[in-house]
Amino acid sequence: MKKIGIGLLGLGTVGQGVANIISNPTDRHPLVEELELIGVSVRNLQKKRDISLPDSIFTTDPIEVVNNPNIQIIVEVMGGIEPAKSLIIQAIRAGKSVVTANKAVIARYGEEIANEAKAAGVYVLIEAAVGGGIPIIEPLKQSLGGNQITKVSGIINGTTNYILSRMDKEGVNYADVLKDAQQLGYAESDPAADVEGSDAADKIAILSGLAFGGPITRADIPTKGINLLEAIDVNYARKLGYGIKLLAISEKENSQSKSKESQPLSIWVEPTLVPENNPLAGVNGVNNAILVEGNPIGRVMFFGPGAGSGPTASAVVADILNIAGIQSMSEDKPFNLDPLLSAKSWKKCHVAHQKEITKKNYIRLIAEDTPGVIGEIGTIFGKKKISIESIVQFDASDSEAEIVVITHKIKLGQLDQALSDIKNLSQVKRIAATMGCL
Amino acid sequence: MKKIGIGLLGLGTVGQGVANIISNPTDRHPLVEELELIGVSVRNLQKKRDISLPDSIFTTDPIEVVNNPNIQIIVEVMGGIEPAKSLIIQAIRAGKSVVTANKAVIARYGEEIANEAKAAGVYVLIEAAVGGGIPIIEPLKQSLGGNQITKVSGIINGTTNYILSRMDKEGVNYADVLKDAQQLGYAESDPAADVEGSDAADKIAILSGLAFGGPITRADIPTKGINLLEAIDVNYARKLGYGIKLLAISEKENSQSKSKESQPLSIWVEPTLVPENNPLAGVNGVNNAILVEGNPIGRVMFFGPGAGSGPTASAVVADILNIAGIQSMSEDKPFNLDPLLSAKSWKKCHVAHQKEITKKNYIRLIAEDTPGVIGEIGTIFGKKKISIESIVQFDASDSEAEIVVITHKIKLGQLDQALSDIKNLSQVKRIAATMGCL
Repeated sequence: MKKIGIGLLGLGTVGQGVANIISNPTDRHPLVEELELIGVSVRNLQKKRDISLPDSIFTTDPIEVVNNPNIQIIVEVMGGIEPAKSLIIQAIRAGKSVVTANKAVIARYGEEIANEAKAAGVYVLIEAAVGGGIPIIEPLKQSLGGNQITKVSGIINGTTNYILSRMDKEGVNYADVLKDAQQLGYAESDPAADVEGSDAADKIAILSGLAFGGPITRADIPTKGINLLEAIDVNYARKLGYGIKLLAISEKENSQSKSKESQPLSIWVEPTLVPENNPLAGVNGVNNAILVEGNPIGRVMFFGPGAGSGPTASAVVADILNIAGIQSMSEDKPFNLDPLLSAKSWKKCHVAHQKEITKKNYIRLIAEDTPGVIGEIGTIFGKKKISIESIVQFDASDSEAEIVVITHKIKLGQLDQALSDIKNLSQVKRIAATMGCL
Repeated sequence: MKKIGIGLLGLGTVGQGVANIISNPTDRHPLVEELELIGVSVRNLQKKRDISLPDSIFTTDPIEVVNNPNIQIIVEVMGGIEPAKSLIIQAIRAGKSVVTANKAVIARYGEEIANEAKAAGVYVLIEAAVGGGIPIIEPLKQSLGGNQITKVSGIINGTTNYILSRMDKEGVNYADVLKDAQQLGYAESDPAADVEGSDAADKIAILSGLAFGGPITRADIPTKGINLLEAIDVNYARKLGYGIKLLAISEKENSQSKSKESQPLSIWVEPTLVPENNPLAGVNGVNNAILVEGNPIGRVMFFGPGAGSGPTASAVVADILNIAGIQSMSEDKPFNLDPLLSAKSWKKCHVAHQKEITKKNYIRLIAEDTPGVIGEIGTIFGKKKISIESIVQFDASDSEAEIVVITHKIKLGQLDQALSDIKNLSQVKRIAATMGCL
């Protein structure tokens, strides 16, 4: 069998992990031995790296790697939107299959890239873009293909899960844990993409497209991070039997849409109360987990390390092997693309209007500690036809009470109306927090 | 695209689940629409079934289905060793790819069947044979292919996990829960294959072959079920911070074997103490979970419904789609098999001699309640160079003490020698229980 030429764009932690696997094939799938690292583009040739590769394969010009005729598969692990996106497109147009870990590019330009790949008859595989080493893209594309998927819920950002796990366990404040996490290398010096939820939103955009068959507009996903979360809400949630996780959710409305109509999806990223008996509740630290629900499978969960050099490299190599396996089937190109691997969209989908999103909610109110205030709040919810799971008063001080309400599943439009009326009650000082609830 | 003809051997709960998916393609992967159920063999044409299929596709002769020229994929869901095994071989020789949920056949004849499939240039896929709906075969074959797998540990029998979960929660006896489970349909009227561990042994044989690249001899796997488990051990384990699960384990020795030598694997099925912080500890009821450890991925876990019509049918259809996807790539046969999907073995493996199996152990002894007995037991373990994690005395009655020992990781050969000396101590009445421990 002819060796399959691999070109790496970038040699950061993930790139080095990939090079490590390819250089040490012992006890891995025998197809790994058929891979050969032909070219690597880096920004700085002089930089010290933990891996020894022949000087001759290095270049500072990624285009040289993309156009190298001995390379069949381009691995983009440089990150960032540009020049990564343009290089992916150039590689596709040069007839190369592409493997990328770039969630930001795929969440925004996945459909454009998929169309380019289809036209060129090549694959673009993205297992490493979501959940680090956890196989989740491949199961959604292949192993769960017989199902009508109804819901995907995930803990898909390790940094925030680490912070939340410590807040929950130690009762400490967000800012203190963040500082610690930065010192330990679990959070970046600019943590915005993680703690404000944008990284998780990129990933749920990608998972939604695969689970429900159609791309959605990344910018439409309502996103709340953990940066405004207060320790007191973690504490109250615990007392009520819940943990708090930054969840990314994508759920189909109950009704089956007619095939021609665009399918509305309730998608959001938000700190969310998770009941202790939910499998996601036990996912702590930097781990990730994705729960997939569908018919007829019921629910399955995928759990593991959501980031890191080794796990992410494992996912990148999985994609390389998939392409290599298919290429080894025939010397004669072209044949048609395998429709499971190429994963073109088969349906129209869109993010449901925020008012139409249906979920359970946690609300914390600050009110005067007077008799009857719970009654008045309950009455307003009742008038708006909002069914309440629980309403509990926690005393905060002599004059103030903190009231926590957990609703049943309702439309956010209903909730907004009720909260607007509640804010107008003279005894209510402010609405201190709202979150989702499973 | 030409429709892909499917033939079903058997129309029990799994077969009906498969037929249901194929008959209702809406909102599933569009490739499901390309499948057409051409023939179904059943034992009894008159039997009432919950699914309506045209009479014309039924036959009582499975050979008719196997040889039908309009059928490209044969789905064997009749169960049992024969005639299932012979029909699988006949289908392969007739040039058909085969999908089967038959763990008993694959665990015993997997290598023979794989060789037949290779010679005929067809696929035999077995996702449904382990873990019901949980994607685990496919991830081991494809998504984790870049890893050096070191260990696979699984809760892979739903019946026993249901029984153990209830014993743990309610402190009740094995026999009582079994009776209940039988009435609820979670255990069969003859529960031997489940409760004696043989079903789990079939499945770990299959997983070992895929994870470590070589088939192992099913009959060599030491197997202990839950049928002799006493409630008191569940109780003591809980007090020491452990739950008890029926685990199937397959682990590579630390040393990398030279590629030509057969790789010894520590494989066993046994009720095992699982510490509360292990991800497997939270897997309750009829759920299954498989934890895979490797380099560089670290560890990933796959969790979900381990049995049932819908989940198992989901796995069968996943395999059908994989084959259909590849067949849709080209009208021209033959081309080479995809080496990831065909999954031929690439290494020699064998079950390590029982004496060489290395693990932590739980031992419960009945002894006279006299001072010094713990010291004497400790001395014997010390002489055999067995390091002890804990030794705890639980009082059972006025004259008798129950002593529980948890060892560190040791070879079973060492343990056997120590236990034989301990049995000879005059104060020791008997060794009441031994189990594995994670």
